[in-house]
Amino acid sequence: MDVTQWVERVTGGDIRLLSRALSEIENRGPLADSLLAALFPHSGQAWTIGVTGAPGAGKSTVVTALAAHFREQDKRVAILAVDPTSPFTGGSILGDRIRMQIHDADPDVYIRSMATRGSLGGLAPAAADLIIALDAARFDVILIETVGVGQAEVDVVRLASTVALLLTPSTGDDVQAMKAGIMEIADAFVINKADLPGADRLETELRAMLSLKTDHEEDRPPIIRTVATTSDGIEELGNALRPIKRDNNRSADYWKRRLSEIIRERLMDEIARAQLPAKRLDEAAEQIADRKLNPYAFAAELTSELIPAAPLSPPTED
Amino acid sequence: MDVTQWVERVTGGDIRLLSRALSEIENRGPLADSLLAALFPHSGQAWTIGVTGAPGAGKSTVVTALAAHFREQDKRVAILAVDPTSPFTGGSILGDRIRMQIHDADPDVYIRSMATRGSLGGLAPAAADLIIALDAARFDVILIETVGVGQAEVDVVRLASTVALLLTPSTGDDVQAMKAGIMEIADAFVINKADLPGADRLETELRAMLSLKTDHEEDRPPIIRTVATTSDGIEELGNALRPIKRDNNRSADYWKRRLSEIIRERLMDEIARAQLPAKRLDEAAEQIADRKLNPYAFAAELTSELIPAAPLSPPTED
Repeated sequence: MDVTQWVERVTGGDIRLLSRALSEIENRGPLADSLLAALFPHSGQAWTIGVTGAPGAGKSTVVTALAAHFREQDKRVAILAVDPTSPFTGGSILGDRIRMQIHDADPDVYIRSMATRGSLGGLAPAAADLIIALDAARFDVILIETVGVGQAEVDVVRLASTVALLLTPSTGDDVQAMKAGIMEIADAFVINKADLPGADRLETELRAMLSLKTDHEEDRPPIIRTVATTSDGIEELGNALRPIKRDNNRSADYWKRRLSEIIRERLMDEIARAQLPAKRLDEAAEQIADRKLNPYAFAAELTSELIPAAPLSPPTED
Repeated sequence: MDVTQWVERVTGGDIRLLSRALSEIENRGPLADSLLAALFPHSGQAWTIGVTGAPGAGKSTVVTALAAHFREQDKRVAILAVDPTSPFTGGSILGDRIRMQIHDADPDVYIRSMATRGSLGGLAPAAADLIIALDAARFDVILIETVGVGQAEVDVVRLASTVALLLTPSTGDDVQAMKAGIMEIADAFVINKADLPGADRLETELRAMLSLKTDHEEDRPPIIRTVATTSDGIEELGNALRPIKRDNNRSADYWKRRLSEIIRERLMDEIARAQLPAKRLDEAAEQIADRKLNPYAFAAELTSELIPAAPLSPPTED
């Protein structure tokens, strides 16, 4: 089986080969780039929905209920659960727990966890590549669940066409204290656990804040109340979410930013794999040990030989 | 002041400028490589001693007492406290606490903490560069204190010419369970807190283990008992430590390994700073958004243009 056949099987619905492709891509294996290049032409159809919020807001329950909602519309659903704090990769406890809750045997719901840390490219670039692959595998909806509200999570959720921000009355979410970045990219606010005391106060605070942003009520993101454990409000939420044309993988703005990332990643990969001139290094090492050669000056010299300044900063372009 | 003058002041004993140079190097600032190149010729005289052991073994107390021991011999002492778990950099609470314990105004004891995490190069490469700088600043002894016993710490302690491994009777250090890598590079075993019950048993276990390694008793690393809080045994420890010729910054083996690291770091820096051809990327992004261009194929093409395969894998050499 070559990459072309592999991708044919993935776009044809082979879940086992999809999983293997996602692992190859996430781990930046030797076939990662060929797979992505072959998958890309099949991508661009999926609707990506980011669901984020503080720990305990009920993200996985909401995502599970939303998946069921979209399954009722006969849509194929993928869930990408991104948890940078989890020590698990490619099948975390969280993902497994959700998987058991939904129809375990449903081939049209696919759940993938990622917890890549310390990779050169970072969390969001890795998630962006996985989304391309899930998109190419013909899932209609990709639910991106991100835990926490740090910068890495904001970057991940920005990959989605539509973003739902979860709040709860109970966890003391203070609307004032919320990260500005998240507030600004939220297309819908979800008051989950709305059966708890404080839901009214939270909604009042939210409405007050949103009214400061724009005078036009129709431009304000909707506020939906849910009790995800009983699926209350989930249908309303599903209907309120709209594929908003934004900075996603169908826009030039997205690719302007993303292309530089991809190229830097590829360059880093090249360097990590590059064969350095071993014989010359050995000779240099002997001279350095005798203090006859300066290792830092030698490194600077060799670096400029290996990456000539000219091609990286073309003087005639820009 | 240019780099030459800066380095003159550092090698002349200016502690404030040494601190600034260490920060520039640790943070990989724009002058890091020039500083290292200018400092290197002054290095190669210091005796580096690594002190490691599990948390709670009393490393900082032993290091403090050893510093006082070497000060009595009129040696200038630098302490490099490496704690990858600390959120503090360039002056941690640990370092400050030790500083207070030793003569605060003694210009011949210099304490530096580092907690670099997530840098491309990793902990040990950063420590290696700082050691070059401290060495060039004419400290006779550099005590490298590493917390914990993970691989990162083993890598750091391998930078030292002499390694002391601290054990305690109390913390349930099991000789059998100790990391093999650490056992093999230890030149001296220190039973600290030797006034606690279990010191005899620990020493018996240690001797049994060391006797398995070699039949020649004179080849076995010494076992020293200390109570560092009262400086008991510290003089004996200081006298037992010997500058062992090893894989350190005066050996060709050290530089064979280290040179590749340095060059890869410099190449990574180049790429992080490199100007990509913005106009071409913008044009490509438009085409990608229209699905007329494949971003991954384009990235591969541009990468091979920017780093021609030839110079990185010279066919005639090796």
